Amino acid sequence: MPLPERQLISRIRRSSKDTSGEVVKGIGDDCAVLRIPRGHETVVTTDFSIEGVHFRREWHTPESIGHRCLARGLSDVAAMGAQPVAAFLSLALPDHVSQKWVDRFMLGFTRLCERFDVVLAGGDTAQSPDGVAADIVVLGSVPRGKAVLRSGARVGDDIYVTGLLGASAATLRELFNGRSVRPSVRSRPHFFPEPRVVVGQFLQKNKLASAMIDLSDGLSVDLNHICEESGVGAWVSEAAIPHDRPAVLADALHGGEDYELLFTARPEKHNLIPEEIDGVPITYIGTIIKDKGVWLVARDMQSRQPLEPKGWQHFGD
Amino acid sequence: MPLPERQLISRIRRSSKDTSGEVVKGIGDDCAVLRIPRGHETVVTTDFSIEGVHFRREWHTPESIGHRCLARGLSDVAAMGAQPVAAFLSLALPDHVSQKWVDRFMLGFTRLCERFDVVLAGGDTAQSPDGVAADIVVLGSVPRGKAVLRSGARVGDDIYVTGLLGASAATLRELFNGRSVRPSVRSRPHFFPEPRVVVGQFLQKNKLASAMIDLSDGLSVDLNHICEESGVGAWVSEAAIPHDRPAVLADALHGGEDYELLFTARPEKHNLIPEEIDGVPITYIGTIIKDKGVWLVARDMQSRQPLEPKGWQHFGD
Repeated sequence: MPLPERQLISRIRRSSKDTSGEVVKGIGDDCAVLRIPRGHETVVTTDFSIEGVHFRREWHTPESIGHRCLARGLSDVAAMGAQPVAAFLSLALPDHVSQKWVDRFMLGFTRLCERFDVVLAGGDTAQSPDGVAADIVVLGSVPRGKAVLRSGARVGDDIYVTGLLGASAATLRELFNGRSVRPSVRSRPHFFPEPRVVVGQFLQKNKLASAMIDLSDGLSVDLNHICEESGVGAWVSEAAIPHDRPAVLADALHGGEDYELLFTARPEKHNLIPEEIDGVPITYIGTIIKDKGVWLVARDMQSRQPLEPKGWQHFGD
Repeated sequence: MPLPERQLISRIRRSSKDTSGEVVKGIGDDCAVLRIPRGHETVVTTDFSIEGVHFRREWHTPESIGHRCLARGLSDVAAMGAQPVAAFLSLALPDHVSQKWVDRFMLGFTRLCERFDVVLAGGDTAQSPDGVAADIVVLGSVPRGKAVLRSGARVGDDIYVTGLLGASAATLRELFNGRSVRPSVRSRPHFFPEPRVVVGQFLQKNKLASAMIDLSDGLSVDLNHICEESGVGAWVSEAAIPHDRPAVLADALHGGEDYELLFTARPEKHNLIPEEIDGVPITYIGTIIKDKGVWLVARDMQSRQPLEPKGWQHFGD
């Protein structure tokens, strides 16, 4: 059974730096108080992670679950080209979860906070009648008017992705097939995904990206989001999609939870886009076009077929 | 069954003003983008509301649940003396909840948003294996350094509360006793509590409050929070605690979810504290003292006894 609420909050409070930089008041008041630097805007994202839907306690270590919950939010902030500042954690726990489990969850969470200099500035705890549920908020800052939106893609823009796609989905498939998968170099993208905060900020600061989104639902879904918000279409080249075994093309196209960045850039920026940013390879995969819809161009570069959004959606869509 | 995720988000997006004032980018990107006015700080609060713990679908109408979820966050912002700006809603829904229920929940939520000119700027949706769970975030702004903290109470300060206490607990008792209670004037504080946003800002702007907290867990618990954070003690007078039938003294002392404000003020401000602010009565109930602990002084003003924190806590404390 977890500690009583007040002791639990005290324990979390002790494990987090109370204040630092922009966080004037952290845990311990009705609200946290943040001081976003002058000339900057605040970006805010929330992500709900639910046992049995986003993770399984049989599959994921508590450290992995804590890491993954926060990584989702950091990745959203990265996709705006913003600097993460503070995190908030709302955690609902059933009676049958041990305090040891909670401590290890918090370890995964706070280790990732520390790596990106993010203060755990507040949150809420609640009793859950059933499984574990964690909702996180990440707040960041970005120079005024400089946030990279989904809506900035224009006809003729190049399309790029960071890293390799489909690795998380490949591990998930193994888990579904009943294999016991432990954290390793190969399974790391699934258990401890790396939010591309440095890459996102590099692209923003150097004015390289016209639109950006993080790959949380899968390339086919997320590229559609950019196209819808920008009022354009796109084609991507099958041969260019970066993936590596055990991930297959379908994993790279439709697998979710890669937390890589998908961005577009004006064609004249092509030579300014590095091959690698912060050690992460950047791959050109296609072009923004006028015709609505997203197309997959075959290896022969002759035929193309619609790339239907098949990424993972809730509520059985 | 609720709508598929993408349609659900589109529907919520249509029902909310996309942007307004400080909200530069609302629903529809990786993050919302907010522009907090120069010279202001950002306050942030999150509140988790869970079916079976914070509400019951048999007891509460969907509109009431939507209202209550948001009211908790607005009340926290009020307790800082801040202006609410934007709300975020993370909503986990089981398959067996109808879209009609979701629509009515959103109606209760957005009506309260509109009353306080708060933009629903983002959030998340997820499938829930069991009950409904809603985590809300409210962001507000307050002039730099002017947020009213819990830690500002000093020895000799007067203690005040807004409104009447215990009404929500009294209704909850009736519900627990198996009575069917419908929303009415008497049950309104429970089903549609009124966050004291105007009162909180009045106190902040006029520099009247030295410390403030909202009464969400009950007077005995929340006064203890102020004392702990300020390193002081307090006594309150039994005769002064404002309550009205059917609420009894115990409801007013220990009942949660009143969402009234509890604040302290320097004694020299006594004559400046209005009897009513925005139509809400303000009642002097006691004094901050040096000795740690919180005391209840009896009606004869002679005897006193410790006021143990008995308000509602999670995890069976």
